[in-house]
Amino acid sequence: MIPLQKSNLEPISKTRLRLWLKLLKASSRIEGELRRRFREECATTLPRFDVMAALSRKPDGLKMSDLSDLLRVSNGNVTGIVDRLTEDGHALRVAMPGDRRAQVARLTPSGLAVFAQLAARHEAWLDELLQGLSSSDAADLHGLLGKTEEKIDAK
Amino acid sequence: MIPLQKSNLEPISKTRLRLWLKLLKASSRIEGELRRRFREECATTLPRFDVMAALSRKPDGLKMSDLSDLLRVSNGNVTGIVDRLTEDGHALRVAMPGDRRAQVARLTPSGLAVFAQLAARHEAWLDELLQGLSSSDAADLHGLLGKTEEKIDAK
Repeated sequence: MIPLQKSNLEPISKTRLRLWLKLLKASSRIEGELRRRFREECATTLPRFDVMAALSRKPDGLKMSDLSDLLRVSNGNVTGIVDRLTEDGHALRVAMPGDRRAQVARLTPSGLAVFAQLAARHEAWLDELLQGLSSSDAADLHGLLGKTEEKIDAK
Repeated sequence: MIPLQKSNLEPISKTRLRLWLKLLKASSRIEGELRRRFREECATTLPRFDVMAALSRKPDGLKMSDLSDLLRVSNGNVTGIVDRLTEDGHALRVAMPGDRRAQVARLTPSGLAVFAQLAARHEAWLDELLQGLSSSDAADLHGLLGKTEEKIDAK
């Protein structure tokens, strides 16, 4: 790894600021590319995929509010997506075990099958988009990103 | 750096997928924290700061459509933000040099002064949020993020 020449000349706060802009740029480019491919190649959307991914991890179902917290999108958007998944037969709403007044959403077998196909595409796209990183690069990057989180989680 | 043990057992595509989820998590946590601090400590918003940052780099002004492309937000949102900056005396719209029908937005001296204060806060927050990274960690992370971009830009 070639050290950044600038880092010898600038205060660390500037280095960290430039790093943040780089991090934001990298994640928004990848996200933009995923968004485009879901739309053009799968006639679906990234938020819909994210909702299916969250539901796929909870076979017993998730409350709308939990889904919305997990995804950091508004409750209204999540509800609209679950409504459309339900119309398409990919999700259903059932009474929550132990609280018959509350409802949870979960994927149907057809929803799980569709999600498995999309997840395979998603994984293959990322494998392609991140092919500039070797296994060891990926491990280093994962570790460094972990270091950024420790400080934020500690707040 | 301790290598990830999992990376010896799993295909590289899984490593890259986990890396993407980590990257997304790190950037959305930092972004969420910035969003919260702008709102609570400066009574402003992250999108408004982003618009001011883009305008501050172009003393001759920017067209709404260029601003919207730069920021990847909708034209409607950018227009609303510029309208409010204009009402507050921080921005103004002027005829574009060489094309009197087209308008560009630029910051006023008061807008530049406010932006300078916000930018100093923003830099200090990032310095704090990323303090888990040494100068050499930051350089390594910057370099690795650069490797992710090369592949996407090449498309």
